Amino acid sequence: MHPYRTHTCGELRSAHAGQTVRLSGWVHRKRDHGQLLFVDLRDHFGITQCVLDISSPLFAEIERARNELVVTVTGEVVARSAETVNPNLPTGEVELRVQAFELDSRAEQLPLQVNSEEDAGEETRLRYRFLDLRREKMQKKLLLRSQVISSIRRRMIEQGFHEFQTPILTADSPEGARAYLVPSRVHPGKFYALPQAPQMFKQLLMIAGFDKYFQIAPCFRDEDGRADRSPGEFYQLDFEMSFVTQEDVFAAIEPVLHGVFEEFGGDRKVTALPFPRIAFDEAMLKYGSDKPDLRNPIVIADVSEAFRGGGFGIFAKLIEQGATVRAIPAPGAAAQPRSFFDKLNAWAQGEGKPGLGYIVFDGGEAKGPIARNLEPERCEQIKQAAGLSDGDAVFFACDKPMAAATFAGAVRTRLGQDLDLLTKDVFEFCWIVDYPLFELDEETGTVEFSHNPFSMPQGGLEALETQDPLTIKAYQYDIVCNGVELSSGAIRNHRPDIMAKAFEIAGYDVAEVEKRFAGLFQALQYGAPPHGGSAPGIDRIVMLLADEPNIREVIAFPMNQRAEDLLMQAPAEATPERLRELHLRLALPPRKAEETA
Amino acid sequence: MHPYRTHTCGELRSAHAGQTVRLSGWVHRKRDHGQLLFVDLRDHFGITQCVLDISSPLFAEIERARNELVVTVTGEVVARSAETVNPNLPTGEVELRVQAFELDSRAEQLPLQVNSEEDAGEETRLRYRFLDLRREKMQKKLLLRSQVISSIRRRMIEQGFHEFQTPILTADSPEGARAYLVPSRVHPGKFYALPQAPQMFKQLLMIAGFDKYFQIAPCFRDEDGRADRSPGEFYQLDFEMSFVTQEDVFAAIEPVLHGVFEEFGGDRKVTALPFPRIAFDEAMLKYGSDKPDLRNPIVIADVSEAFRGGGFGIFAKLIEQGATVRAIPAPGAAAQPRSFFDKLNAWAQGEGKPGLGYIVFDGGEAKGPIARNLEPERCEQIKQAAGLSDGDAVFFACDKPMAAATFAGAVRTRLGQDLDLLTKDVFEFCWIVDYPLFELDEETGTVEFSHNPFSMPQGGLEALETQDPLTIKAYQYDIVCNGVELSSGAIRNHRPDIMAKAFEIAGYDVAEVEKRFAGLFQALQYGAPPHGGSAPGIDRIVMLLADEPNIREVIAFPMNQRAEDLLMQAPAEATPERLRELHLRLALPPRKAEETA
Repeated sequence: MHPYRTHTCGELRSAHAGQTVRLSGWVHRKRDHGQLLFVDLRDHFGITQCVLDISSPLFAEIERARNELVVTVTGEVVARSAETVNPNLPTGEVELRVQAFELDSRAEQLPLQVNSEEDAGEETRLRYRFLDLRREKMQKKLLLRSQVISSIRRRMIEQGFHEFQTPILTADSPEGARAYLVPSRVHPGKFYALPQAPQMFKQLLMIAGFDKYFQIAPCFRDEDGRADRSPGEFYQLDFEMSFVTQEDVFAAIEPVLHGVFEEFGGDRKVTALPFPRIAFDEAMLKYGSDKPDLRNPIVIADVSEAFRGGGFGIFAKLIEQGATVRAIPAPGAAAQPRSFFDKLNAWAQGEGKPGLGYIVFDGGEAKGPIARNLEPERCEQIKQAAGLSDGDAVFFACDKPMAAATFAGAVRTRLGQDLDLLTKDVFEFCWIVDYPLFELDEETGTVEFSHNPFSMPQGGLEALETQDPLTIKAYQYDIVCNGVELSSGAIRNHRPDIMAKAFEIAGYDVAEVEKRFAGLFQALQYGAPPHGGSAPGIDRIVMLLADEPNIREVIAFPMNQRAEDLLMQAPAEATPERLRELHLRLALPPRKAEETA
Repeated sequence: MHPYRTHTCGELRSAHAGQTVRLSGWVHRKRDHGQLLFVDLRDHFGITQCVLDISSPLFAEIERARNELVVTVTGEVVARSAETVNPNLPTGEVELRVQAFELDSRAEQLPLQVNSEEDAGEETRLRYRFLDLRREKMQKKLLLRSQVISSIRRRMIEQGFHEFQTPILTADSPEGARAYLVPSRVHPGKFYALPQAPQMFKQLLMIAGFDKYFQIAPCFRDEDGRADRSPGEFYQLDFEMSFVTQEDVFAAIEPVLHGVFEEFGGDRKVTALPFPRIAFDEAMLKYGSDKPDLRNPIVIADVSEAFRGGGFGIFAKLIEQGATVRAIPAPGAAAQPRSFFDKLNAWAQGEGKPGLGYIVFDGGEAKGPIARNLEPERCEQIKQAAGLSDGDAVFFACDKPMAAATFAGAVRTRLGQDLDLLTKDVFEFCWIVDYPLFELDEETGTVEFSHNPFSMPQGGLEALETQDPLTIKAYQYDIVCNGVELSSGAIRNHRPDIMAKAFEIAGYDVAEVEKRFAGLFQALQYGAPPHGGSAPGIDRIVMLLADEPNIREVIAFPMNQRAEDLLMQAPAEATPERLRELHLRLALPPRKAEETA
């Protein structure tokens, strides 16, 4: 007989009755029934009820022991009587009558309860992560993560992608965030950087002719943590393809995302293929965001014309000065008490706005402070434009176009929550496309890149040479699910001449840019294929599937928000010898220097 | 029609004749036949011959262009005449008559030839890696790597393993090599370490109840590069299992390795399952190494008794002083000229030995300097012990036991090469087991750990308390293929009491050890399951399969031996602002400080 187990703790059924078996696992829970001691023995695969009779010499020893010690038990599988079958437990038809017992490992007093649904405090959970991870819901979430990644890999390979590992000790790259540096021992005074993303390398792989690359890639940013971002490291499904259009990129990745969300989403519906494509301008107008949560049925409308020159003087005046007015419908809100409107007004003021004007359409009338000043036909015009019915309300955001759009988006999100409007149990995907390549810096009046300077301009060199820069769109796109941006992507600018022109328009010294991104610029001189890709965030995909707003719940060993690993005690001080070897001296801030002096 | 391609360059066959198609790729090679210009167009998938007639307005443009520019061509697929079919090319039945041509990217004068089998110098290859990787053999090697890793993953998952990512920004661990440090911005004066291996975390995953873990894990060691080791980073198939014996670990990983080597080994035979298990002591005796290359048929024998008190005085005297004599057979070497023996003698002297004694068995006689002094019956005894026949020679290593074993192993390797004895086209696997837990430091006379202090001693606590430490074996094992160590592994010591005792025997202060490995020690207090695993090197597996002795050939973007990335220019200097942010000052060696002053 195997020294540890003939079966797992999730395996025994009534068909095993009569067999002598051996199980190993953790003592999950004990129930002392006087003559009998029931022990729930747990391993990765499940729980099996083990029973000891008081006459057994083992009784006292197990009774005394703490939960979470590890034991190996041998005994006979016995079918439970009909009334004691536990239908909630896969092994609930049987129990094990223990005949022999071996202690594999003792357990100290537990700092957190493994057999509890309730979370301990975060510090305790992270310090004793090995205990926290034993809990059923953590096991499930981490297994989900593992299975999701494995499924993504399989699907990418089926689509003809090859996975390649790119360097982790590399040079700093232009992702815009702060990179971690790694001092070189061999090259005094020099540093490697951990990649913020394998962007340069995936483009080099395309230039090297690999056609379709992907990687479940570790990425590193030295940024402060927040709920949806882990300090330190995160993973992305990095991919890139050659000889493709934007639509080819969508066609390659959509079935992967759709398939994974179908596979692990349970009963939750997933947007049918192809996912909707929404132009950036349209998204900003209708949803006030380029990360629209399409579970929210509210669609914003522009109602500037209804207010222009009208009786509601504040808006009319602002419109003359260049403002626009966006209408955010609040379906059914006419039934809400006055306090609902007041609370929203106060919230808007908290957001730095003068307030949140509204009209209520009720009993065939337009009501409220704005309606009292605005001509009835203008009220009717708003009702039409915003698709409102009697019983609805509508809120207004009046500001410069981009500010009005963004605030309208915030109101839309807030109304969606407060009125509980979001469709339940769905994953609503969309692509945001046609991002502007340039934008105007309103302070300096200069043209600058809006997002990614390395994206291909729509219309190519000709557009750059002939169009007003602010009208040029880029082949750049985001994929969004339930209001969460999973990633940005682009068709890359693979032409050095087009890139030089684009940088020139944004006021850069091209020679400086070429120097800064020398590796990539050089590679583009030797026959670069047209290429593009994207990089959906793995952690975010798992968070959505696990319905979990905190990223630390879907990572096995996360750092805390102060970027510390409480279990392994990282970061830690280095010895003077190590610092010498790395050609470094500490330059501590004054207080710290005193403490360690 | 797709703007870039309707087919790949590896796809067209005679069945496509008559179709108008579009291809994109690199101009691989051109042949000007006066009236016709032949262009081999290459992409990731293959090469297609494209033909332009002199009458085409495109002729001159393409004729002028450099190799490696990227073009899109449109034209008609035409079946080649029987005598022009190229059977060596999958697309050799057809050619494309070009009707339209678009230039996607220009190419500068090439620093290395993509259409050549010959390697450029290493510095050029690494500086222009994106060109070097376009070459057919590099494409094949990198694809092999990608497919091997994908196959390993699939096989591990089929065996019930789950892949989990472990932290890359973590604490320094006791792997023994030098870790890379990463300064913390948030915690002045503190550093993360990049993992030398995820050893601690995989043990924590077992303690957390995950049962079967694996990861294609990036590992980092700040060590100097050599042919089979990349400076900086490497990958291992890290795995760990709970409630297992050593044999369970072997049974889990053997089919994975066997399967991968069968799948990608081509005609090369793979050792049948189960792989042989060879005890460490036996390996040292028979092969003079714990990494025996079993393609080499030579088996070493101990012949101390044949020399003890015999006529060959030098050996007899050394044996009295504690030396042993190992006999290394050289099959068929009696036919070798005198120079063969002289060369080996000179080589041995170059290795710091007094020389390399030998006996030649020829024409029914024992010949050579040793045989002239040694009694014939002793020569016969050696012949028997070493399994020799007339026509063979035998060499001797006489030294203290471990030194004799090791040198005999070197002679065995050398003879295997010089006599061309190695079996061709095979992968010979074996496990080396039963490593001693402790060894004697011959200088200090103290007992210390031989290899891994965290392995479980065979016999457990009782062995530690009752046996002579030097006789205790560990549940520790290596897997070796063709003389290459793929990895070490062990059943871990999961019992704090046994661990404390083992460290005590090796003369360590247990409190100090517990402090140094606090994370793991703490975790062992709360119910650790028995567990074990291993971590075969991915790069080495791919090197064996690619039959490639240089690790840089199987890595997409390797650093050079000075740990520099010539393409991305890493490592590089950091700005004073970045250093300030990281609370660091440089402390450059004097010469360097002068240069930058």
